[in-house]
Amino acid sequence: MERKTVLVIADLGGCPPHAFYKSVAESYNIVSYIPRPFAITNGHANFIEKYSVAVVKDVDYLKKISDFEHPDSIYWAQEEYGKSEEAVVNDIIKVATMFNVEAITTNNELFISPMAKACEKLGLRGAGVEAAQKARDKNLMRESFNNSGVKAIKSKRVKTLKDFKEALEYVGVPLVLKPTYLASSIGVTFIYNEQDAEKIFLDAQEYLDSIGVPKAVTFEAPFIVEEFLQGEYEDWYTELGYSDYVSVEGMMIGAKYYPLAIHDKTPQIGFTETAHITSTILDVDARNKILDAVKKANEGLGLEHCATHTEVKLMKNREVGIIETAARFAGWNMIPNIKKSFNVDAAKVLVDILCEGYSEDLPKELLTDPYNYVADFHLYPHDFKINGQLLENVSNIIFDSIVIPENILVGDTKINSFNTVDKGSQLDLTLFEAFNGLAYLELQGTSSQDIVKSIQEIKKYAKLYLQGVPITT
Amino acid sequence: MERKTVLVIADLGGCPPHAFYKSVAESYNIVSYIPRPFAITNGHANFIEKYSVAVVKDVDYLKKISDFEHPDSIYWAQEEYGKSEEAVVNDIIKVATMFNVEAITTNNELFISPMAKACEKLGLRGAGVEAAQKARDKNLMRESFNNSGVKAIKSKRVKTLKDFKEALEYVGVPLVLKPTYLASSIGVTFIYNEQDAEKIFLDAQEYLDSIGVPKAVTFEAPFIVEEFLQGEYEDWYTELGYSDYVSVEGMMIGAKYYPLAIHDKTPQIGFTETAHITSTILDVDARNKILDAVKKANEGLGLEHCATHTEVKLMKNREVGIIETAARFAGWNMIPNIKKSFNVDAAKVLVDILCEGYSEDLPKELLTDPYNYVADFHLYPHDFKINGQLLENVSNIIFDSIVIPENILVGDTKINSFNTVDKGSQLDLTLFEAFNGLAYLELQGTSSQDIVKSIQEIKKYAKLYLQGVPITT
Repeated sequence: MERKTVLVIADLGGCPPHAFYKSVAESYNIVSYIPRPFAITNGHANFIEKYSVAVVKDVDYLKKISDFEHPDSIYWAQEEYGKSEEAVVNDIIKVATMFNVEAITTNNELFISPMAKACEKLGLRGAGVEAAQKARDKNLMRESFNNSGVKAIKSKRVKTLKDFKEALEYVGVPLVLKPTYLASSIGVTFIYNEQDAEKIFLDAQEYLDSIGVPKAVTFEAPFIVEEFLQGEYEDWYTELGYSDYVSVEGMMIGAKYYPLAIHDKTPQIGFTETAHITSTILDVDARNKILDAVKKANEGLGLEHCATHTEVKLMKNREVGIIETAARFAGWNMIPNIKKSFNVDAAKVLVDILCEGYSEDLPKELLTDPYNYVADFHLYPHDFKINGQLLENVSNIIFDSIVIPENILVGDTKINSFNTVDKGSQLDLTLFEAFNGLAYLELQGTSSQDIVKSIQEIKKYAKLYLQGVPITT
Repeated sequence: MERKTVLVIADLGGCPPHAFYKSVAESYNIVSYIPRPFAITNGHANFIEKYSVAVVKDVDYLKKISDFEHPDSIYWAQEEYGKSEEAVVNDIIKVATMFNVEAITTNNELFISPMAKACEKLGLRGAGVEAAQKARDKNLMRESFNNSGVKAIKSKRVKTLKDFKEALEYVGVPLVLKPTYLASSIGVTFIYNEQDAEKIFLDAQEYLDSIGVPKAVTFEAPFIVEEFLQGEYEDWYTELGYSDYVSVEGMMIGAKYYPLAIHDKTPQIGFTETAHITSTILDVDARNKILDAVKKANEGLGLEHCATHTEVKLMKNREVGIIETAARFAGWNMIPNIKKSFNVDAAKVLVDILCEGYSEDLPKELLTDPYNYVADFHLYPHDFKINGQLLENVSNIIFDSIVIPENILVGDTKINSFNTVDKGSQLDLTLFEAFNGLAYLELQGTSSQDIVKSIQEIKKYAKLYLQGVPITT
């Protein structure tokens, strides 16, 4: 059978490169378009090169030889990307036309909206222009959710301090102040009392100005203020160690929602995520309530053909609060772990859907009860402040290594992989915690509960070695 | 200044990837076209990806996921490449047109002829169609040399045993039997007495059938029989340790020859080369005689715009015998070593010439007397048979390591780099010696003579360690 050609807009985020490109290349010819060469790490570049039949980079960002070098790691690509959305749409259309592609996809939040426009102009299946815009602007997204039959949440657009004061008045505390157009919880701030609120807002404004985003990213207001969705753990889980939110991975086909899997979480550090467990141990009633809300939320946005990653707060009396949704795959290793746990290759399913309008590999219903649970788990400096190995006032460290003692894993839990930041890495602990992951582990076992207990043991007993003496504030 | 775009047909051979792509990317946008994905190693792929603004592979050779994997090393790409020359020309034109390139180049012998045709059709500077064909077919090449005022050499086209017998009659012994369309001395056979001649020819025919080449490679006859060019070392060098041939690296601009550098050699093992030294220590008279012949040979072929690599036999009474020429860069590290010795970046010079018709970086005359000489030197199993560490009848070994004793280097010679085949590599010593390089060294020093003496010391004292017991015949 002739292999169809799919254009991948290659950038940070979503399904990780080590899984995505090979999965798709099994069945499709990949043309990779790299709009921001500075956002591609060495490792990512190797996967792109190996599994693509063609690669096209934006030459506007390749002017001198150092522009061609790939960084070893990137959390958020900070360099200037000054193209208008219209220019980005035209670039995508140009490459799509050169290679006569039959579908376009991306793992990156920032290119979802221009991609939807390009798909529409080319007559290809996509998320839909208006829906993509709603999925990218948290104000529009919340308005859509509030109109789609899920639990309504008070929210306000915020551009200025005056807007913020009005929002504070309207929403009340506790509230969440979020940038409307970023991803990965960057800049998400919790405000729980009124007297600090203004200062926190002004700090957040300053911080947001420091985060580079493509000019093509458009929004009506830079911030949204929302009621804080109060979780109620005990109404959902009978065991300790999970968190009061989950994420749901799914697909939109012809504007209809199809769930893939629900990920349980371990408790956040602020808004920084700590572990995703494939898949949930929640009971049928809980799962159905979640899926019902997630379906309404995503279909309410009008998303047509795309992957979705929806975050859900588990509230009192099993009420479901939609935190937000994205018209792309989940990050970390959630998508590859769905393959490990259920042998469902979501990357291929997505490209099938984009190319054919359906996929034979799409599960008939939510994937549950895997033979093996898989957890994607990160250790942060905070964990070592909690377990007493770092003083609370430490601001800068030089990482040497982390050692996990033997025999602390519970049940049949095993460590599939364990990586750390490089020996000698200098870490500024005053930065957003998510930038400062120290270790990346994959755990596997037949019991999710044992995995969660193992995570707790690792957090307690992992030994952190530093170089030199930490700097304190 | 706007960076111009050059199409590189990326395949084996010529200026090595570690030097070529970066040199060109300093000044030009590279679009890499990969006609034979199976001929690209991991290391090569990384350089292509990093320094190209776009990469296009021939999807006809990417049908299943294993086709996307890169081998770690390749000496000669054996897989089937069944495209006609016309199809290859059209593929090149298609990619060149997609990216609106202003020049096309390749380091690979096999694509020189289709590239010349594509350049002609696109109105780009190239080697010239007829000249490229002559440079690719050793029969046509010899006929051209014989008509261009250089020493005439008896030669004959050979397709069949009957042809061979006639050639043997006409040329006499000693003679050289060569495949007309390969590179790297593959299949080159020396015949020094008449009674073995027929059997050697039949063996060579069988061997040639086992060497895969693209169908696009065309030739009038598979073999050429030529008089053996008898070297006369003492008429050229006053010191021992070099060989009776040199290579000359140069450029053609508007059908005029411009020399870059002459490489001295160390003695061959059969027809396998052992070291190239940048640059020659030959005296002015010798250099002038060589350049005169090389200029006539290359201009006689009618080559228009291209790099040239010309091999020259140093014969009795300082007569110069042209062994052969290629319309591309020399292999090994000869081109990067010209940069190391003289700070002349020949890869950039070539692309300047192809894009602009000239290069400001082209040396005004032959490069001589470098401050540092650089030798690119390989150790082969034969060297360890000579120094007594391998018995003459050993046919198979498992390589472990090579250790070079300290303090055996002469003068200020130093080892810039020293790599070996992987520990555990299984080597079949009955294969063509050039396939069985064991160690790759770069030596540097202010005296070429000391480097050559150091090479002799290394050949004598390098210690070869094997795994297990070698198999003997």
